[in-house]
Amino acid sequence: VGADVVIASELTSVRSVRVQAVRRLTKRAFRARERRFLAEGPQAVREALASPGGVGELFATRDAVDRHRDLVAAAASAGVEVQLVSGDVMAAMCQTVTPQGVVAVCGFVDVDLAAVLAARPRLVAVLADARDPGNAGTVVRTADAAGADAVVLAGASVDPYNGKCVRASAGSIFHLPLAVHGDVAETLHALRAAGLRVLAADGDGDDDLDRASDDGRLDGPTAWVFGNEAWGLPDATRSLADDILRVPIHGRAESLNLATAAAVCLYASARAHRKA
Amino acid sequence: VGADVVIASELTSVRSVRVQAVRRLTKRAFRARERRFLAEGPQAVREALASPGGVGELFATRDAVDRHRDLVAAAASAGVEVQLVSGDVMAAMCQTVTPQGVVAVCGFVDVDLAAVLAARPRLVAVLADARDPGNAGTVVRTADAAGADAVVLAGASVDPYNGKCVRASAGSIFHLPLAVHGDVAETLHALRAAGLRVLAADGDGDDDLDRASDDGRLDGPTAWVFGNEAWGLPDATRSLADDILRVPIHGRAESLNLATAAAVCLYASARAHRKA
Repeated sequence: VGADVVIASELTSVRSVRVQAVRRLTKRAFRARERRFLAEGPQAVREALASPGGVGELFATRDAVDRHRDLVAAAASAGVEVQLVSGDVMAAMCQTVTPQGVVAVCGFVDVDLAAVLAARPRLVAVLADARDPGNAGTVVRTADAAGADAVVLAGASVDPYNGKCVRASAGSIFHLPLAVHGDVAETLHALRAAGLRVLAADGDGDDDLDRASDDGRLDGPTAWVFGNEAWGLPDATRSLADDILRVPIHGRAESLNLATAAAVCLYASARAHRKA
Repeated sequence: VGADVVIASELTSVRSVRVQAVRRLTKRAFRARERRFLAEGPQAVREALASPGGVGELFATRDAVDRHRDLVAAAASAGVEVQLVSGDVMAAMCQTVTPQGVVAVCGFVDVDLAAVLAARPRLVAVLADARDPGNAGTVVRTADAAGADAVVLAGASVDPYNGKCVRASAGSIFHLPLAVHGDVAETLHALRAAGLRVLAADGDGDDDLDRASDDGRLDGPTAWVFGNEAWGLPDATRSLADDILRVPIHGRAESLNLATAAAVCLYASARAHRKA
C-alpha cells in the first residue's frame, strides 16, 4: 500500500461528521444542493477515476484496497487519496445490502441540453418521465453500448444520480454526455430544431420499427423518446414526434420492458447508421 | 359480487393452516416438492386463469375484488373460486412490499425438453446458469414478445417459479413453453440434433451479430444461448455452439446487461425469420 495515496488512519466512527456528509448524499435533496453523488463498487469507481476531475473523495476498506490494486494505482494517477474506512463505515455510506468495499464522492456529470446539441449528435436517447432508476441506468448503459451520443433525462424522470441508477449504468454514466431537462416538449423541440428526427417508442404506435428501418427512416440523425413504465407517452408528447413506432410484438406478450424496448430501438438505429 | 364465485367468509388468520400452506410456496424447496407456485398481481393472475387448469386456488382482498371485476369473471369462467382474505393475510402470502391484492396458486407449467423439440421450434432462448430472477423473467417476457417458440432454463439457472422471475415475466411464463433442464451440454446437443443452429451470445465473441445477420446465419431455426450474469459462458459451453456472436459495442460500455443483450439477439432473429 503506497503511503502517498492511501491514508492509513482508518475512519471507524459511523457518527463522524465526514461519514455523515457522505451518507447524506444517498438523499436526492442533498445531492442536488451539493451537486455531488456517490459511485459505489469497483467498476463505477474505476470509470469515475478515468473521468477527469470526476472523483472528489474516495473511500475503501482495507480488504478492498488489497483486492483492487488497479484502483489504488488509478487514484494515484488521478491525484486522489484513498481514505481507509472500517466495514461499518462503508456499510453506513452505501445503499447496497452487500457493499463492495469502495465508494467515491463524484461531481455531477450532466451537461446542458445546448451542449449536447452543439456536438451535432447522430443518436440521442430521451427518457420522458421514466421513474424506475434501474430502467434509467440500464438505458444509459445500453445507449453507451449502442454508440449513442447522449442521453437526456426529461420531464419528471428519475434522478440519474440515484444509487440504483448509477449501479445499473455500470459505469456508463461517466462515458457519454447526460443532460437533465425538466420540460419534455422543450427537449423535443430543441432536438428537432437541431436536425434530429424524433421517434417516439410506443407499444400502441400503428407504425413499426422494422418498416421504419426498411424505408430508411432510421438512417439520419435520430432522437428516440421512451416514456413512463406504467403509462407510456402522453398524447402531448406523441404529437411532437415525427413518427410513433412500436417494437413489433410477435408473440402473446402485452408489451416489452422499457429498457428492453430501448435496446431494440437503439440497436436498430446503430445498425442503420452503420449501413447507410 | 357473485356468491357462486367469491367465498365471502374472509380468511383473516395469518397463522391458519391454509395461509401457511400458501406462504411456504415462497420457498423453492416447497415449490419443487408440490410443483406449485405463486402468481402475484392482476396481470399474472389474469394470464394464469387464461391458461387451462392453470390456477388451483385464488385469493384476493375485498378491495381487489372490487377493482378487478374482470378477474372475478375470468375465475368464474375457469371454475375457480375466489377466496377473500384480509390485507394482513395477503401481505403474509406475498413477497412484494406492496401486494397488489390478488395471488393465485398455480401448477408448474414447465414441459420436457423433448416436448419443446417435438414442436419443431424455429426460435428458442436458452439460459445457461443465469442466476438473477429479474433477468430470467425479463428474458421470458422478451422471448415471448419476439415470437420465440420456447425458453429453456438450463444448468444451474434460477428457478423460473421464483416470485421475482414470475413478476418480471409479466405473465409470459404462461404464454410460451418453458423447459428446465439441469445439463447445459445435453440441452445444446438435443437442440442441434433437432436441426437448430446454436448461437452463443458472448461479449468476447470474435464474430458479431450484424455480420451473422447479413450473411444469413440467422435465417434458419435458431437456439440462442445466454450465460451467467457475472462470468458469461464457460469454454465447454462455447465449444458446443455453431457460432459465438457478440452484440457489437459501439461506445465505451464494457458489456450489456444479460436481458438487454438477449433482446437485441432475439429481435435480430425475429427480423431475419420474417425477412427470409
